[in-house]
Amino acid sequence: MCIFTLSIAAPMTNQKPLILITNDDGITAPGIRTLIDVMKELGDICVVAPDSPQSGMGHAITINDTLYCDKVVVDKDSDQNEYSCSGTPVDCVKLAVNEILKRKPDLCVSGINHGSNSSINVIYSGTMSAAVEAGTLGIPSIGFSLLDYSLEANFDPVRNFVKTIAQECLSKGLPKGIVLNVNFPKLSENEIKGIKVCRQANAHWIESFDKRVNPLGREYYWLTGEFVNEDKGEDTDEWALKNGYVSVVPVQFDLTAHHAIKDINTWDL
Amino acid sequence: MCIFTLSIAAPMTNQKPLILITNDDGITAPGIRTLIDVMKELGDICVVAPDSPQSGMGHAITINDTLYCDKVVVDKDSDQNEYSCSGTPVDCVKLAVNEILKRKPDLCVSGINHGSNSSINVIYSGTMSAAVEAGTLGIPSIGFSLLDYSLEANFDPVRNFVKTIAQECLSKGLPKGIVLNVNFPKLSENEIKGIKVCRQANAHWIESFDKRVNPLGREYYWLTGEFVNEDKGEDTDEWALKNGYVSVVPVQFDLTAHHAIKDINTWDL
Repeated sequence: MCIFTLSIAAPMTNQKPLILITNDDGITAPGIRTLIDVMKELGDICVVAPDSPQSGMGHAITINDTLYCDKVVVDKDSDQNEYSCSGTPVDCVKLAVNEILKRKPDLCVSGINHGSNSSINVIYSGTMSAAVEAGTLGIPSIGFSLLDYSLEANFDPVRNFVKTIAQECLSKGLPKGIVLNVNFPKLSENEIKGIKVCRQANAHWIESFDKRVNPLGREYYWLTGEFVNEDKGEDTDEWALKNGYVSVVPVQFDLTAHHAIKDINTWDL
Repeated sequence: MCIFTLSIAAPMTNQKPLILITNDDGITAPGIRTLIDVMKELGDICVVAPDSPQSGMGHAITINDTLYCDKVVVDKDSDQNEYSCSGTPVDCVKLAVNEILKRKPDLCVSGINHGSNSSINVIYSGTMSAAVEAGTLGIPSIGFSLLDYSLEANFDPVRNFVKTIAQECLSKGLPKGIVLNVNFPKLSENEIKGIKVCRQANAHWIESFDKRVNPLGREYYWLTGEFVNEDKGEDTDEWALKNGYVSVVPVQFDLTAHHAIKDINTWDL
């Protein structure tokens, strides 16, 4: 199975931890502004985030086009370094680590996403793909998402949870090859029952396409879909979220289905 | 760990298997034209592929834009149904299954990609993400890639291997939640030593960005990178390919690192 080596944790020096912050909703989204506020309490921060919404971009990277990345001031009352990037969330992480930051960050946090990234949504999520990308570079990483797609979503109830989880990650580190997928139910702080470490629920989307005709007479489609969770387990992220808990799923980017190697070896190849 | 249920295989009827074909290099790429040729020997086919190159698009989906999907004739000497789609490889699969095909395909094949999708490349790959998407919909799926980025790549040496693997998949099925990532070395057919079922090598990219200035004086970047394989195992896809074998990695889309749940449960949350 997976090879475990030492956990990756922040170095034991007097230096403050360096925290890279990104997202997929764009650098001005309320979710990332909350995340910035919380992370400033934990270390030195650097923000490198998309200049426009990049939801559903998965692990896309820009290989056939140019990338722009400009230093910007989003919040005039703060002095953090912020960079707005024309690329995808994964591009942002690559640019930050290889071009912008002088040293490897001690933590990468992505989000707080406006909307769920639980269950199968993890594979479509730009938020989580940014965290995974940082993980492939050996950086302890967490993606945070709130189950509220609204641009006016209230992130205040989850601030303390975000801080606690990030603090624990900075002090304990993460096993190599693992990043965290954290989802918050849309509840007030005192309605949230606690935090559950979970597995990804076995769910999927059934899409339907809204077929329309453009003003020039050409047919086009809009993707719409229905989320179907057939997983009745009480150890899943979907169960936790429906029952008022914060879900934490350890996610790996070794996609090998090790248990299936034996099956495929019975084939006549 | 993962829940195993019955394997998914083609139904035992006299009906020919229905095979969905897609890729990420675009519908006119030589790789998909070879795949179409081979699959016509195995069943009824339908091609739904991007209208332009979509390499590195990962599991991106189009959620904030329109999708065009037009029936096209690429090969005048053939009568298969082909659709050219403005979206990503994953969009193509969603459109095919939910809008174009009258029944669920018995197999989805993606590729043959011009270039490697072994090791960590699987997470960036539009080719593999299309196969994974079909897998989430319960369709046995395989992504094929040749280690030759050239548009003039010679796919003839791998035709028999593609056919054998697809035939076995149609007859034996795949365990639920598993798709196959197949990579071919750039060798002649009789130089290829055979097929190895492998795990994904533990490798990553170290990026460097080529910084340039556009004609208007604004700085921009081009992503370039170096592939680093630190995995010395002889059971990996990288080892197989370097030693003249076809690599077959069973890939899962339950990303849960089940073995890490216990570790994270020791945190003070």
